[in-house]
Amino acid sequence: MRSYGIWLVGACGGVSTTLACGLSALQREAIPPSGLVSSSPIFDGVQLPPLKSLVLGGHEIRDESLVSAARQIARDNGSLSIELLETVQDDLEQIDGRIEPGVLFNSGPAISGLEGLHDQVNFTDPRLALERILVDLNRFKEENRLDEVVVVFVASTEPAPEPHPAHEVSSKLEEHLAAGDGTPFLASTLYAMAAARLGCPFLNFTPSPGALLPAIAQLLEEAAVPFMGSDGKTGETLVKSALAPMFKYRNLKILSWQGYNLLGDRDGEILAHEANRSTKVASKDQLLRDYLGYPLHSKVTIDYVPSLGDNKTAWDFIHFEGFLGHRMSLQFTWQGCDSILAAPLVIDLARMLLLAKLRQESGPQPHLSLFFKSPFGGDEHDLHRQFHLLGDYLASARDAS
Amino acid sequence: MRSYGIWLVGACGGVSTTLACGLSALQREAIPPSGLVSSSPIFDGVQLPPLKSLVLGGHEIRDESLVSAARQIARDNGSLSIELLETVQDDLEQIDGRIEPGVLFNSGPAISGLEGLHDQVNFTDPRLALERILVDLNRFKEENRLDEVVVVFVASTEPAPEPHPAHEVSSKLEEHLAAGDGTPFLASTLYAMAAARLGCPFLNFTPSPGALLPAIAQLLEEAAVPFMGSDGKTGETLVKSALAPMFKYRNLKILSWQGYNLLGDRDGEILAHEANRSTKVASKDQLLRDYLGYPLHSKVTIDYVPSLGDNKTAWDFIHFEGFLGHRMSLQFTWQGCDSILAAPLVIDLARMLLLAKLRQESGPQPHLSLFFKSPFGGDEHDLHRQFHLLGDYLASARDAS
Amino acid sequence: MRSYGIWLVGACGGVSTTLACGLSALQREAIPPSGLVSSSPIFDGVQLPPLKSLVLGGHEIRDESLVSAARQIARDNGSLSIELLETVQDDLEQIDGRIEPGVLFNSGPAISGLEGLHDQVNFTDPRLALERILVDLNRFKEENRLDEVVVVFVASTEPAPEPHPAHEVSSKLEEHLAAGDGTPFLASTLYAMAAARLGCPFLNFTPSPGALLPAIAQLLEEAAVPFMGSDGKTGETLVKSALAPMFKYRNLKILSWQGYNLLGDRDGEILAHEANRSTKVASKDQLLRDYLGYPLHSKVTIDYVPSLGDNKTAWDFIHFEGFLGHRMSLQFTWQGCDSILAAPLVIDLARMLLLAKLRQESGPQPHLSLFFKSPFGGDEHDLHRQFHLLGDYLASARDAS
Amino acid sequence: MRSYGIWLVGACGGVSTTLACGLSALQREAIPPSGLVSSSPIFDGVQLPPLKSLVLGGHEIRDESLVSAARQIARDNGSLSIELLETVQDDLEQIDGRIEPGVLFNSGPAISGLEGLHDQVNFTDPRLALERILVDLNRFKEENRLDEVVVVFVASTEPAPEPHPAHEVSSKLEEHLAAGDGTPFLASTLYAMAAARLGCPFLNFTPSPGALLPAIAQLLEEAAVPFMGSDGKTGETLVKSALAPMFKYRNLKILSWQGYNLLGDRDGEILAHEANRSTKVASKDQLLRDYLGYPLHSKVTIDYVPSLGDNKTAWDFIHFEGFLGHRMSLQFTWQGCDSILAAPLVIDLARMLLLAKLRQESGPQPHLSLFFKSPFGGDEHDLHRQFHLLGDYLASARDAS
Repeated sequence: MRSYGIWLVGACGGVSTTLACGLSALQREAIPPSGLVSSSPIFDGVQLPPLKSLVLGGHEIRDESLVSAARQIARDNGSLSIELLETVQDDLEQIDGRIEPGVLFNSGPAISGLEGLHDQVNFTDPRLALERILVDLNRFKEENRLDEVVVVFVASTEPAPEPHPAHEVSSKLEEHLAAGDGTPFLASTLYAMAAARLGCPFLNFTPSPGALLPAIAQLLEEAAVPFMGSDGKTGETLVKSALAPMFKYRNLKILSWQGYNLLGDRDGEILAHEANRSTKVASKDQLLRDYLGYPLHSKVTIDYVPSLGDNKTAWDFIHFEGFLGHRMSLQFTWQGCDSILAAPLVIDLARMLLLAKLRQESGPQPHLSLFFKSPFGGDEHDLHRQFHLLGDYLASARDAS
Repeated sequence: MRSYGIWLVGACGGVSTTLACGLSALQREAIPPSGLVSSSPIFDGVQLPPLKSLVLGGHEIRDESLVSAARQIARDNGSLSIELLETVQDDLEQIDGRIEPGVLFNSGPAISGLEGLHDQVNFTDPRLALERILVDLNRFKEENRLDEVVVVFVASTEPAPEPHPAHEVSSKLEEHLAAGDGTPFLASTLYAMAAARLGCPFLNFTPSPGALLPAIAQLLEEAAVPFMGSDGKTGETLVKSALAPMFKYRNLKILSWQGYNLLGDRDGEILAHEANRSTKVASKDQLLRDYLGYPLHSKVTIDYVPSLGDNKTAWDFIHFEGFLGHRMSLQFTWQGCDSILAAPLVIDLARMLLLAKLRQESGPQPHLSLFFKSPFGGDEHDLHRQFHLLGDYLASARDAS
Repeated sequence: MRSYGIWLVGACGGVSTTLACGLSALQREAIPPSGLVSSSPIFDGVQLPPLKSLVLGGHEIRDESLVSAARQIARDNGSLSIELLETVQDDLEQIDGRIEPGVLFNSGPAISGLEGLHDQVNFTDPRLALERILVDLNRFKEENRLDEVVVVFVASTEPAPEPHPAHEVSSKLEEHLAAGDGTPFLASTLYAMAAARLGCPFLNFTPSPGALLPAIAQLLEEAAVPFMGSDGKTGETLVKSALAPMFKYRNLKILSWQGYNLLGDRDGEILAHEANRSTKVASKDQLLRDYLGYPLHSKVTIDYVPSLGDNKTAWDFIHFEGFLGHRMSLQFTWQGCDSILAAPLVIDLARMLLLAKLRQESGPQPHLSLFFKSPFGGDEHDLHRQFHLLGDYLASARDAS
Repeated sequence: MRSYGIWLVGACGGVSTTLACGLSALQREAIPPSGLVSSSPIFDGVQLPPLKSLVLGGHEIRDESLVSAARQIARDNGSLSIELLETVQDDLEQIDGRIEPGVLFNSGPAISGLEGLHDQVNFTDPRLALERILVDLNRFKEENRLDEVVVVFVASTEPAPEPHPAHEVSSKLEEHLAAGDGTPFLASTLYAMAAARLGCPFLNFTPSPGALLPAIAQLLEEAAVPFMGSDGKTGETLVKSALAPMFKYRNLKILSWQGYNLLGDRDGEILAHEANRSTKVASKDQLLRDYLGYPLHSKVTIDYVPSLGDNKTAWDFIHFEGFLGHRMSLQFTWQGCDSILAAPLVIDLARMLLLAKLRQESGPQPHLSLFFKSPFGGDEHDLHRQFHLLGDYLASARDAS
């Protein structure tokens, strides 16, 4: 049987830890595949890499292990049960053996100020940082005899990089790298470059804008690998993209859409930093204007509320105008656990990118827009049209097989 | 210019009164067409009957006028403004001249117990009741030189009729009519028969089950007229049908969906009667099970809260299960004015049914499912697929023209 | 050191199990006393029975143990953690040794139809049922060398008993008992009689109306024991009693107050039975009318939503009128775990009733109204005045000591 | 009959306009006194100035009239009805004759940038500004033969003034005034000084911190006039102060309290300016910490949402910990019209301050804390204790009469 690797950048974060526990439980057939889109009926007949063929490894900047991270989630957040941890303990220990110290590069004070960082994670020469990534990825692939490896960026959201001419053209970016000039690089940029170097599909599940700069997209296209991002659509924005079409169908004019997000995990702590939050908020707020096609008053706020842990709570207020100019409202409260919602999507996307690679497809994968707040290169924000795009792709993948 | 009639059964109720005010204001170009689907861009190039070609008339069982009903809505509910009433006053008076006393027939104690009924509305012989309807419809058509007339049932929700063999076969229903046996008939049944007799398109905008019995559908098909129903999708169910697909797309399993509807107008008062409410609740509750394809715990409650008037408030609580069996929730509060939401849909549907008649189409119109809680003959409850059905139809109508 | 017993009727239900775990953890000083009113500063200087002096025992009709009930709650509901269960395991086993099969008596089909009932719990002769209770209570007191024992009714809500003349006069009730006529008795009635017989304080924490019938109150007064009830105020009604005064203070007129309660535990299952629910709903709904002193439209609904387990979710909608008759609204969603909220109140009340006994007080204890939806004999529903009543009592208890 | 004046600073704003309409309608006995605390039963037997004895006048910086402001509110917001405007039209015109151009003084760019300002409102010499206020107040009193006049500050919230030594000591403030140095003065400061000069009671209904600086409080005390402030408690904070005690009573520990306020009127537009908002937010946020006595995570946000007009919508999320450390939540949505809520409180406070003056009381009035977010000199934030303070005062006022 063939084997495929998923290389998690941010391997002991909430999403990765939940993913590792869940994938192990699925491989052991201990749980049903709830929340996993790639195991729902629309994928019947599509030759995805089987769950049991997937092998995890990754980079983590903190001196942490999956086993202890999982225990902490169980204790603090309740989204992993003690019974589950017992079931998957051995597997987590094995994966922990495949997790290496990660790379910090222009990551900003919020991230580089995290407690418990490994010693060897700070780099100033981009060549050395990239070299470390390549060595670790190669060893992961060889030691585990993997046919393909997908590189997944699920680390904390980076601040937006300073604009730089090298961001626009792959050759220029390579020149700065060759010269050892770190200015235009963020950690996410280097991970994406590593994926291009090794012919690995690349997934940016975060809003980090350094990951899919125009120059990087060029590099990935030149390497003929499929890639996609950015910013997994897990909660409030998912609901937004399901509801906005309703107003359009009925010619109900949205006057104001205010969204307030409360969360308390490490992600929330990082996003309490303005520089990191602004990239996230921009990602969450652009959807409405793009989709509706008329100006409206809208705002997205993210607040750090430590007591909530990973149990995100979002309240949205939608004020709209109907017949005779009458004003009405819809409000919703979303209470979801971000890691629980994100982890299966990462599995889905990794499988789909591996499939694309096997089918010798490359470049951005617009049929995966359904999974992202800011789908790369795409302006399709209607959840339902996104779902139909996926359906069309699956139909062609099914026919071809 | 050609002219088309809309015959409103329940002509001075909240929906009809709002419709009359709004249509008049639209014809006078005093307001923009917010909330009117048939004036949104997807209808560009489709040869719908123009708004200015529409003429209103109808039946009303209460001794009431549009002018006074509109004033009461302005005072009690605030959804019609004094300025608007001044603009449309003359038009309302003209329409009032085209409203005749309606027909009560096995309508149940809630409806026949309403205050202020006309004297001449009670019938026991279905032949006499039908005759009255036919006479009034014919006069409306002739006096106003109308090319076509669509019959629209927007009266209060009737209780479900006792099951009767004649409900299944049109010939049997005709036999009972001929024999003067009123048992199998409700008022809505007779209105639909009248539409069939005169070749008028028929619209059941209410959940009243007597309107589109199998025998009635046969009659309408035999008369080669287009028809559609039932139960306009204006509020909570609209949101439901937009959100349910989101859970399906993401393989998130809905465990419970509880919906609580609070409303205070005459509709709410009628629905406070168990017999009338049960037909409504059934219509609101069937959607989820049909759509999701698995059993779930769900409940729809309608409560009469007089202080709200027509400002419906609905709270829905959705409990769902994601990855690793983790439970999360979404709740929403919808605050909308039912008449404001319903009135433009009736205009949309009337125009679409008139278009169908002009295009010599007949029978149920599944591309109008978007507008109904219980689309006739259809099992399509996904709002987005419903919208695509409409889009496909409009594309073909556009090509043909 | 003196020791005091708490005899829990319904000893393995959610409230009792949570209470047992929590009390054990408090006695072991493993947790802080959050949620325990009797450990808050207002009790400083009051000579309450110390937490470590309390000994648990009780009756349970189901063949169940605290150890297994606690595990099930940990698994299904998450409100007891695995770490906690490990801490208290030994104590729970000891308490399990003091739990005896309970008494079913005219308890209605919902309760007597529960799965897993003990064999010996059905009685038809009230003398035999009472005898069983007395024997078990006496043995509990003697074997554990307890100075006082408080009898606490926390079993499932019984249906309202058929009205009976013997409910009004203690002597008549005794006559029917002597004659072996079970008609006027419910299980809760017999437990309260047992408390009177043995001079034990009595607490009805449920809305079961059989527990504090006028004849029973007489018996308890004659026995010179303090008692109180009914129906612990844990969630939605607590919020109601905190908010209603706000509207009164500001002369804002409440037009409608609709309350919807969703819960999924055994309590919810029992309350899904109309007979049992109606006693609960009456208890929840009377507060507003009594307090506000004017008629308003109000409704309380309780729905069984199994997926919620013990995580009660309540939505209340309050419609009110201010200056110039303008209508406004307040809505709230309460998400609380019923057992977690109730268990500490039972400890508080048991300690307060024991204190009253030690202070040789008897009869109803109006200063405990704060804790009840339907405070016995009292018409004080203003949460804040209730709190002041408690404060006044504590001041006098403090002075006296 | 004696007559009393209410001098409204900000006389054509939403609160003043609503007040003027409502007071006129009350004087004409056209409406019941809903929302007016001073007309509720707790005031029975207290010799308040009767509603019919009250005469309105004031200052307004914009070139606006009550008649046109009322029409705009009716049209845009719906909180004043056309029928009401017809009833009070004559009275509004009379009051308009008593409204003079107001005073801008260090009011900040948000306020001085408002459209439609009068020409003569900008001052740089505080002596001239104060003189204008004194002249206008004196004329108001004389021409209307008023026994007493209360000065009420209901203008837009000013930014916090730069700290200045003269803010602390009345004599220093007088020195700067005498020297024509405007640095330490804001418009609200000058209005309060004018009240002190003329022996008028003074009310700061806004959070503007310039109105009740320590030096100003000294001046008002020296003038032996009663005064009170700041920031009328109308909505979200009112609910907060009703709910916070509930958690305290039950020993439930609040972990986080997040409050989001959405509003769209001129007030909201001014508060969209950070400098103006920060004084408001501070006022709303201090309550919890003061009252609960332990640190908690809390945040208050105010967002400008133009489509809402004066219909404020606030969502609060309260995360709390109960028994066994279990976390639960309460969330509420408040939908109220700010002017409708504020206007009657201004009448209540004006009557109470006039009563105090007649009773020869002076200085701050702590029994009016109930009406304020930041009661002057007081640290009582418990709504219920505040109500009891008022009750005690009224009892003594009743006895004395």
